[in-house]
Order: sequence, then C-alpha cells, then structure tokens
Amino acid sequence: MRILLVNPNTTEAVTESCAREARTVAASGTEIVPLTGEFGARVITSRAENAVAAHAVLTILARHHADVDAVLLAVSYDTALLAARELLTIPVVGMTEAALVTAHLVGSRFGLVTFGTPTVYRDLVAERGLSARLAGIRSIDTAASEVYANPQSVERRVIEAASALAKDDAAECVVLSGAAMAGFARRIKEHGPVPVLDGIACGVALCEMLVRLELTAPSIGSMVSPAGRETHGLDPALAALLGKRSRGGPN
Amino acid sequence: MRILLVNPNTTEAVTESCAREARTVAASGTEIVPLTGEFGARVITSRAENAVAAHAVLTILARHHADVDAVLLAVSYDTALLAARELLTIPVVGMTEAALVTAHLVGSRFGLVTFGTPTVYRDLVAERGLSARLAGIRSIDTAASEVYANPQSVERRVIEAASALAKDDAAECVVLSGAAMAGFARRIKEHGPVPVLDGIACGVALCEMLVRLELTAPSIGSMVSPAGRETHGLDPALAALLGKRSRGGPN
Amino acid sequence: MRILLVNPNTTEAVTESCAREARTVAASGTEIVPLTGEFGARVITSRAENAVAAHAVLTILARHHADVDAVLLAVSYDTALLAARELLTIPVVGMTEAALVTAHLVGSRFGLVTFGTPTVYRDLVAERGLSARLAGIRSIDTAASEVYANPQSVERRVIEAASALAKDDAAECVVLSGAAMAGFARRIKEHGPVPVLDGIACGVALCEMLVRLELTAPSIGSMVSPAGRETHGLDPALAALLGKRSRGGPN
Amino acid sequence: MRILLVNPNTTEAVTESCAREARTVAASGTEIVPLTGEFGARVITSRAENAVAAHAVLTILARHHADVDAVLLAVSYDTALLAARELLTIPVVGMTEAALVTAHLVGSRFGLVTFGTPTVYRDLVAERGLSARLAGIRSIDTAASEVYANPQSVERRVIEAASALAKDDAAECVVLSGAAMAGFARRIKEHGPVPVLDGIACGVALCEMLVRLELTAPSIGSMVSPAGRETHGLDPALAALLGKRSRGGPN
Amino acid sequence: MRILLVNPNTTEAVTESCAREARTVAASGTEIVPLTGEFGARVITSRAENAVAAHAVLTILARHHADVDAVLLAVSYDTALLAARELLTIPVVGMTEAALVTAHLVGSRFGLVTFGTPTVYRDLVAERGLSARLAGIRSIDTAASEVYANPQSVERRVIEAASALAKDDAAECVVLSGAAMAGFARRIKEHGPVPVLDGIACGVALCEMLVRLELTAPSIGSMVSPAGRETHGLDPALAALLGKRSRGGPN
Amino acid sequence: MRILLVNPNTTEAVTESCAREARTVAASGTEIVPLTGEFGARVITSRAENAVAAHAVLTILARHHADVDAVLLAVSYDTALLAARELLTIPVVGMTEAALVTAHLVGSRFGLVTFGTPTVYRDLVAERGLSARLAGIRSIDTAASEVYANPQSVERRVIEAASALAKDDAAECVVLSGAAMAGFARRIKEHGPVPVLDGIACGVALCEMLVRLELTAPSIGSMVSPAGRETHGLDPALAALLGKRSRGGPN
Repeated sequence: MRILLVNPNTTEAVTESCAREARTVAASGTEIVPLTGEFGARVITSRAENAVAAHAVLTILARHHADVDAVLLAVSYDTALLAARELLTIPVVGMTEAALVTAHLVGSRFGLVTFGTPTVYRDLVAERGLSARLAGIRSIDTAASEVYANPQSVERRVIEAASALAKDDAAECVVLSGAAMAGFARRIKEHGPVPVLDGIACGVALCEMLVRLELTAPSIGSMVSPAGRETHGLDPALAALLGKRSRGGPN
Repeated sequence: MRILLVNPNTTEAVTESCAREARTVAASGTEIVPLTGEFGARVITSRAENAVAAHAVLTILARHHADVDAVLLAVSYDTALLAARELLTIPVVGMTEAALVTAHLVGSRFGLVTFGTPTVYRDLVAERGLSARLAGIRSIDTAASEVYANPQSVERRVIEAASALAKDDAAECVVLSGAAMAGFARRIKEHGPVPVLDGIACGVALCEMLVRLELTAPSIGSMVSPAGRETHGLDPALAALLGKRSRGGPN
Repeated sequence: MRILLVNPNTTEAVTESCAREARTVAASGTEIVPLTGEFGARVITSRAENAVAAHAVLTILARHHADVDAVLLAVSYDTALLAARELLTIPVVGMTEAALVTAHLVGSRFGLVTFGTPTVYRDLVAERGLSARLAGIRSIDTAASEVYANPQSVERRVIEAASALAKDDAAECVVLSGAAMAGFARRIKEHGPVPVLDGIACGVALCEMLVRLELTAPSIGSMVSPAGRETHGLDPALAALLGKRSRGGPN
Repeated sequence: MRILLVNPNTTEAVTESCAREARTVAASGTEIVPLTGEFGARVITSRAENAVAAHAVLTILARHHADVDAVLLAVSYDTALLAARELLTIPVVGMTEAALVTAHLVGSRFGLVTFGTPTVYRDLVAERGLSARLAGIRSIDTAASEVYANPQSVERRVIEAASALAKDDAAECVVLSGAAMAGFARRIKEHGPVPVLDGIACGVALCEMLVRLELTAPSIGSMVSPAGRETHGLDPALAALLGKRSRGGPN
Repeated sequence: MRILLVNPNTTEAVTESCAREARTVAASGTEIVPLTGEFGARVITSRAENAVAAHAVLTILARHHADVDAVLLAVSYDTALLAARELLTIPVVGMTEAALVTAHLVGSRFGLVTFGTPTVYRDLVAERGLSARLAGIRSIDTAASEVYANPQSVERRVIEAASALAKDDAAECVVLSGAAMAGFARRIKEHGPVPVLDGIACGVALCEMLVRLELTAPSIGSMVSPAGRETHGLDPALAALLGKRSRGGPN
Repeated sequence: MRILLVNPNTTEAVTESCAREARTVAASGTEIVPLTGEFGARVITSRAENAVAAHAVLTILARHHADVDAVLLAVSYDTALLAARELLTIPVVGMTEAALVTAHLVGSRFGLVTFGTPTVYRDLVAERGLSARLAGIRSIDTAASEVYANPQSVERRVIEAASALAKDDAAECVVLSGAAMAGFARRIKEHGPVPVLDGIACGVALCEMLVRLELTAPSIGSMVSPAGRETHGLDPALAALLGKRSRGGPN
C-alpha cells in the first residue's frame, strides 16, 4: 500500500519530519510517498495562504494520485480536504481530522493545541461536524523555525498547554494540531495528565483502514468525482482530471 | 465609491449579468468594477473547482484592491470569502452571505434555491454561523447555459422551488443562491408567496453600508491582515501583499 | 425615503441622540422621523418594562407607519421586533439585530457590550438565530444618566469592555448594544483592537437597503400581516390596523 | 393555596374552560382564581396581539398577585412569561412550558399540536431551551369558535394530528398547545398511540410543586424583581410595583 | 398513592435521608416506599458502577413495581432512567432530571452542584436534552462519608459552589445533584443568592403530578414496554417482566 | 495483538458472524478472541435489555481484559462503551461508534440503517457527539432469526434502505448498525449508490490503530480507571477490578 503524504507548506523540513513520523507508525507493507507543495507559503499561517495552498494540493493530487492508494494531508489546516476527497476516488484523510475522530475513541471531551489562531481551528473542528465534544483550544505562540531549532523548549510548552486543557477545560485527551508537531506526541506522552494525539500517526492508520475497507465510490451526492468540467489556465493534469469523461456518461 | 465585483466563474456572461444587477441597485455615486477570474472552471460546480477559484480570487484582489473601496464576490460559493476578508483591510462581502444576513431581517426562517448540490450549500450556511433559521434547500437541476438560453423556463422553476420552500418547509423568505440567478429576484417577485432575495442586490447595499461605517481594521484576532509572509511561485501582486511589512512591525 | 425611528424608552434625550447618529449616517435623501414612546419606563432595564414598551411601540407604529418607508427600533432590546415586522408590510429593523447581522460581515466571532443584564442579551441573540458566532457579552454597570453626564468616562469603560472581549474571548468585532450608546462607535473607533458596531448606524443603512430591494409582502407564513382581528380596549389606530380587511378576503 | 389563572385572550369562555380543567386536576385545598385580560384581542393569533396581551397580563398581575400563591398563564403563547416571572416573587408557570417540561418526563421526543402557526411555536419551544427533543409540530386550521361549537370534530382532528406526529415524526408524547384545547387531553386519551399532555393540567400541578418547594427569590441575575423604576402612563398598580423600594436599598 | 424510591447506592443511610426528604415534601396521602439496591457499589462514583447499578435498579423494579403508582430514582446519575421508563407503564422520574426540568420553571439559566466528575453530569444533562440553559457545573471534592459526618462543613461548601455559579456563570438557580445532598436545599435556602433545587423534593412532586395526569401508555415508539423477550440468567421477576405476553399480541 | 470481541446478545451465532467478519479484516498478527454474554437477552432490542447487558459486558471484561490488547464491542448499542473505556486502561471501541467516526472520513453526511427503533440510535449518535452530520436513520423491521435464515432478502432491504437514505436524505455514506449485519457491507457494496460501513470491520482497524498509538492512560478526568471502590454482590473479578489499589495511592 502506498500513501501519498502531501505537505503544502513549501518547507521540505516539515515534509520530512511528517514522513518520518508516518513511517514510524505505518504497518509493514505501507510505503509513505512524501511530496511538498510547489508554490505558496513557506509556512501556512493565514486563511489566504491556505486558500492558495488548496490549489497546490489539488495540482499535486492530479499529478500523483494514480500511483497511490490513499492520501494523507500533512498540514494542520487539512488544506483542501473536502475538495480532494471529492476529486479523487481513493481515500483522503486530513491530519487534524484524523486526530479529531481518534479523540472520540479515547476520551469524553478533547482539547486542541496549535501554533496558530484558535478561531481558525475552532471553525475547522466545527466544519468537520466535531465540535460537540471540543473542550478547548490553546495556542502556543512560536515561530515555526523555533520548533526545529529548539524542540525541547517547544515540547515543554506543548506539555503545559495540554495539561492546562486537561485541568482547566476538562479535556480528556489532546489533539496536537500542527505539521511541525509531528512526532511530539510520541516523545511527550509520559509527561501529561491525558493522552495526546498526533494527526500524522492517526492519519496513517486511518488511511490504511480505509484502503482495507475497499469502499465503493459514490454515484450520487456531493462527493461524486467531478467530470466533464471545462476549465482553462490550470495545470494540465488537473484540467484533465476535472475534464475526464463521466462514469456512465455518453461516449 | 467603487465596488470590485469579482466573478471567479471564468464566464464573462455571468460577470456581465451580475454587474448589470449590481448597477441597478447601486446608489448614485457607486461605481461597479466587474472582473472575471483568469483561470479555473467556466462554471464552478464542485469543491475542487471552487478551491482553485479561491486562488484566482485572491490573485485578482491582490492586483486590484488598491483601486476600490469594497469587494463583492459574485459567486454563489462566496469563494475565498474569509481569506479575502482577512487579506484586505477594505470590506469584502459574499453574495450568498449577503442574502443570508438580509434574510434574517425579513422572515423568521429562510429557504435557499440553488443550481448546485444542497449539501454544499447547507455546509456554507453552517460555516457562516447562519443555520439556526434555515428552513430548507431546493436544488434546480439545470445547465448554466440553459439559464441564459431559456430564462423564462428557469425562472418558472425557481418560482416553483421558492413556493415549495414556503409551503412545505415554512420558509418565510427565499435566498436565490447563484451568480447566474442575478436579477431573477427582481423579475419574479410578484409570483411567489414569500419575498425572494438576490445576493448581488443585497451585497451591493451591504458593501455600501460597510464603506459608510468606516470601520477600523482589527489589530488582533484571526482577521488581522497577514504580513511579512514568505512565499514562492505566486503572482507578484499576491506575493507582495502577503509579504508586506507588518503594521507596527520593526523597520 | 423616510425612516421612522422609534424609541420606547420614554426619555427624549435618548431619542435625540439616536436621531443625531441616524442622520449622520443616512444617505442623502433619507429623512429620519424620530418618535418617543408615550407610556412606559423612562429607561427600559427589565423584561417587564420591555413587555409594556412593546405595546407602546405597536401603538406608535399603527399611528405613523403610513407616512414612512421603514421603521428602525432605537432600543437595545429590539422591542416588539417580530410583532412589528409581522404587523406592517414595510421593513422593520431592530438596532441590535442590525449590528448583529453586520457583525457577521466583519469578523469571525463577535462580542456584545451592554449596560444591561448579559442573560437578557444572550437570549436576544439566540432568539434571532445568531448565537453561533457569539464570543461573549460584557456588561457595564452604569446609570443611563451617567452616559449623558459623563460620556468620556463611559466611553473609556466601553473601550475596556470591547478590548477585553477581543483579548479574552476572541471577539473579532464588537456590537455596542444600547440606545444610549448611539454615536459611541464613531467616537471610540480609534481606541480598540477590533471594529465596533453601532446599531443605529447599521440599522439606518439596512432600512435603506430593504426599501431599495422593494421586497413583496408574504402571503403565507407567520409574517403575514394580521387582518380581521377583533379586539377591544386598544388605541383606535392599532385596533383598526389589526381589524383591517384581509388581503384577498371576502368583502 | 390560591393559583391565579390568567387568560389574556379577552374571551370569557376560554377562561372558563381553562378554569374548569384546572379545578379538575387541582389538589384539594388548591383554589383556582381565573381572570380574563381587560384589553386586547378576543383570540390571540399573532405576535402583535400577543405583544399587546403581555401588557394586559402584567397589569392583571400587578393588581392581583398579592392575593395568590402562584400564577398560571392560560394562553398557548405563555404570554409575558419571563417578564411575569421576573416581576413577581411568587412562582409563574406558562401552560405550554408546563406541558413541555412534563413531556421530558414521559417520552424520548415530543410533538406539539396547535391551532396557530407552527413557526411561532417552534420559536417558543426554542426560547424555553427545550428544542432538543422536539419531534415535530402540527397545526390544525380551525376557528376558535369552532372548538366550542363543534368539539367532537376538533377533537377528532387533534387525535389525527397527534397520531401523525407519533407515526411520521417519532413523537413519543404530544403537547396540546392551546387554551381552547383545555380538557381535550383528558377526553381523547384513549384514542391516540401516545400520551397527550394538557398544559393547564400540567401547569396547575407544577404551580403546586413550586409553592411547596418554598424557593427563595434570587438576589442577583436577570430574575431579580425590578424596583425603583420610573415610569409614566401605566396602570397605577403596575407603576407602583415597578417603582417599589428595592430590597436592601437605602431608605 | 405509593411512590417507590429506589436508591442503587448500596448504602442504607443514603436511602434513609432521601426517604426523609421525600416524606417532608410529599402530599398527604402519598406513601414513600424506599428500597436500596441489592448489589453493586456502596457509593456510585464511576460509569462502571453506574452500569452495574442499572441492572440492580431494573431487578428491584421488576419485583416491586406492581405495588406502587410511580418510581423515583434516588441517585444523582438517574441510573437506568430510560430503561426503567420503557420497562414499566407507571411513571418513572429521576431525581436529577426532576430538578433540571424544575429549573426551567424558575430561572433563565441553571447551574449544577455535584460531588462527582463534572463531565459525567454535563453528559447527563445533554442526554436529557436540557443543555441549552446549563450555565455551569461545580464539583465539590468530598467523601460521601463526610456528608453525614460533617454536614455543616459540606453545606457551607455547597453554598459557596452555588454562589460561584450565580456570580461567575450567571446561573439563576442551582440544581443540587446528589442523593447524599437530599434535604440540603431546604436547609441552605436562606444562604445563597439564587434558589437551590433538591431532586428528591422535585421528584416526589413530579411523580405525584404524573400519577394525577393518568396518562396512557404508548402503543408505538421507543417507550413501548418490551414483551415476549427471551432471556436467560436473569432474576425471575425481571425475566418474567421482559418475557410477558405482548399487549394485543396473539394468545 | 489480541482483540477481545464481546457480544452481549446471548446468541452464539451472532458472535460467530461478527468474529468471522473481524478476522476477514484483521491485519496479519491480529488475533480475534470472541466472547458471548453469559446472561441477558438472546437479542437485545430494548433499553432494559441493554442495561442488563452492560453488567454482563463489564463482568466479561473484568475476567478477560488482562489477556488482550483491546476490546471491540460487537453490539449495535455499543453497550457499556463509556463504562468499559473508563474501567480499563486498554482501548475499547464500540462497533457503531467505529462506523460513525469512519463515516466522517468518507462522506459529508451519513445515514444509519438499523433493525431497531430509530429514536434509540438517534440518541446513541447524539451521545457520542456525532449528530452534526447525521442525515437520517432507516429501520428495517425484521426478526433477528430472519437475518440468518434468509440473508438475501434482508440484504435486499438493507440496500433499499441505504439507497433511500442517499436519495431522500442526502446521506453520502451509510452506517450499518447491527451485530447481525456483520459482513453485509462487504457483500452489498456493489449495489448501492454510496459507500456502506460495517462497524465490525471499522472497529477492528480502529482497535489496531489505538494499540499501535500506545497512548498513556489519563491521570485526571472522568476516564481515570476507578480504584478502591467498595462493592458487594458482584462477580469476584469485577469486584476486584473496581476495588484495586489506586495508582499512586497510599500503600
């Protein structure tokens, strides 16, 4: 099984650390295929950068989806998640979504730690329909560069944030939402009062599950893959994918 | 006052009909500046096309925002709405959002008529925090080309859908959500049991209101305009806007 | 265009300051017609006083609606809002509702500053179906008389409350809910971290929008104007309006 | 124990049938004191009439509350419920609210049958915070006069509506919301698939419960009885009640 | 009228204090029949103990329901509430549920004081569909033994918790959720800023109300009493009740 | 890795078909250990039977948890799910919950097909905090025996129900909620318009994921394993587990 791990932050180091964590958790026989976005922000920190990154993600998927069995979005925003799921007929999982659904299997309520703006993540959880058990969100104010330059310091702050979520907000597990936090959960797990979840680790396992389930593609509803679409100015692979002949359409 | 009307459906006829409706409702002294997306789908009908269109919208805004006082997104998906609002310090209004907030001033519950998939619009209403009074959504299955080739027939079906929403779902006003429906509300208003709202008409008036209010830009929160962002591969205007020196930052 | 500005607080000074703000923001050609409630509390601060004021508002509307194009309720409770909207076939907008819907166009979440009890305003926001993006409510404990006697002091406290909503509750814009705060937003706008919204200013613009849209009155649903109602003991104008012959009814 | 039963529909026959049902269910030792509104609509069917009736209810309460132990609002709108509860320090219960809370003790989800507009009752349930288990609302289109002239026919339609709620909407009990339906539940109880609840019967029992509990009045929050309020043009009893010296205030 | 008061905490002292409070509030003519669970935890403090207790409750009910008119669950978890309501055709009320619905008749928002984990009670309120007006939950960390050994100290802490809910969370009344707190509300009622509610007192009155209403049992829906069920290994009375011949079934 | 598959329906055939499906999907190296409840209903169809089954589940877990790495509840009610998760420090997954969280990774909204009462499953989805994307529930009225005697007929009805959910309720994937439906999803997957999910298959994969993640047990919150509990009358293994010495407690 091959899982395409797409990181639209145009920073190779983030892709590499996500791929490393993905390989640590992957089943034997699962190959991780990491790819970094070709245009956009070095580190996505705003909705505008995320909107641009969505285009980058879809372009990568159009070019590479045929060679893989599932896609894992290695970006805390789950950039282009629904668009990618709609576009392709193979499973697509976002790293934050992956940790959120796993959280439902672990505690009664969950918290979320992010390097970004809480409001954006609050909206992300809501858009996935998973707000009912959200206990709280804590943001750690750090530059992405700091995460790699000084990981111990950042890890300590993540532990503090997770502990505060458990003690003050009654979170019973904590989602670490950030591609740059890949691997943190594994390293800090002895140091907090509640379990912490890494979206990459959860996402790899969920991709594997979905591939094993061999679900059929839908023929009705909003998740039917678009076809016969007329576009211009797009990457040829993306244009071809959107313009493909419809299943069951006239020949 | 100048309002930039952006249509990321790459079909000039849609832009023109939206601009025509916008000018009909605009106050004297308001100039409508219509622009069409430069890349992407002729008619946006999927999340994937909408994700690409978001990039196109932001590129247009980066190039043209300095010459206008407000932005109206002339696309039923309100493509890139929050990203655009965050990116710019002038008001940005989406046509569907505009009709939705207006609906709150008119009836107790509202319905929505679309040419697209109801699920996508249900999510859009929810993401704007405006689901509490949503009575129902009806989709009209028609090709966009049909709207211009055979408007009477489509109008008749819109009237039927609006009436069904009023009678069966207790909608007390109806939002017409579709750039291709610009002007319909004006033409059919005598023929349904409840008021119908056109997002372009509402959006122009709301842009005018926001410009008049002369609100300040926020200095904290998720709507602070990004600055100092490092990107690559983007349109120069967009890269420059994201990379601008931060307000109050070090020189 | 003539907008009836109704203040059911039976204090002329409040009406005057609301009218002043309304005229500041009104388009040229819009005439503001201010009226003060004829019975009830000097300053409405309880549900009981507000219930009485609803009767006063409807009586004023019955007497004066025929001479105007829209109604703006200049009272933070939006007293009798739905009853008035149902009773009349011209647009009716409440000042707090006006600011709330405008807030949806500005930030991702909004706060509310009031001189009253937060619970009452929390319920008001919920009743309008607009709670999903409510970040928090702050109450300023001041006598209404203080607002006019010592405006700078009150303004300073409003700025503090708005700042606290932004910093502690992640509000990205703030609604000032209070007829006695009319004009504050304009004066304090340079002093807070997020935009502040004045219900009178928003309400005037929204009344103008609704008049321009020339919406039809509904023929079905809960917003159909009552007719043929038998009453006794009411103001003759109100009795006549409720007892009018039904549209399309038998003669 | 004396319970003031207030019917703001200015129709004595409605008051009488409600009082009759109240006396049927009242404990021995409970006296029902029925009063009819002194001004307003014969039969309240619109929000405007209900707003006027709120004033009438508060006026009656101001005059008569000192002689009773609790108040039951005998009107499906629960007219002025929160205002009355705030105004007085004795228990106040609305008939529809009474049936709604009782419904929570009986089935998993409940339906509601009304002679009025469903939207108004949907909002009423929501405003009481009791929507989570609302299965559906059915309206019976009948004139109030018909209820007294032809009760068997109306009862049959109520049974049909209750059955439809149970079969189609999974309601497991049904609230009959209408002062004119007082006593119906008792008469039709053998004829439907699920229990039916009469607000008058529930309300009398709940008034009795609240009197027995001897709860203290709150000293903080939105339910503190207003005091020291300056009004003009009101009924002397109501003015006196609003203007009373505050508990614990300066003498 | 006979009310079976079931306490599945296998501690007689708790049963006795609940029965004492129940008798204090019961109408003349109401007999309280207290029973203690025959197996399980001395004091239920976890979901696991509560799950076991549910079996104990149903066993008691199977043996004793035929001799009583209603059932009151004297345990803060409302153990087996829906199962018991489904199993029997007489009214079943839980003590926490009883206080929660009563709270809706008293204040605008309510708080809850517990000796247990707030998350469990938050879920309990949500499962009853009564979260909309929940202001907050405070937990008092005390051993159950302490409640009987040192009641004044515990009462003082309950008053503090109730006051904090009123002042900090805007609770306008407070539910005391704990069988061991039976009678507290009566004793502390002069000492807090808002009314406090005792589930036993509320529950007795609500049982009496439901018996008086003489509601019919449902013939469709999830609350129809199970019949014809094949089991093994159960208490004979419970097996017989589940296996009884269906109403209206073939003979 | 060993997964304990617990079926509290006391019918071996159900356990066997669930174990068969579990083994089909399990990774190599995963051993499925099936166990059937020792007391209770042959087929759980009511809340009362489910409450009894919870006791049976906890008893089995107390006896057997030490020999396995995770627990899968093979019963559509997810019987005793939270109690079991709290009681043990190894992962516990319910089959319906497993399919529900998987559904979030597949479509935008999901439906549910059951052999039971929709209201019970609606509540179950809500209690797991997963209602936001529930499109609808369809019940198939069949005896459990029929499922094994006449599987093709039942499968056809499941396909019809899934198709109706997709077409009428906009479900984009469908959860099959029923232990007796184990394996159906695999067999019918070519015959419906949207993907169908089997809780056993999803549950096995999710158990494997959770074991791989090696999460720590919480030290605070409602999911801390109970300890030092005093009980009587319980199975010795369960009594011992509840009464175990607390982690970190005094020796």
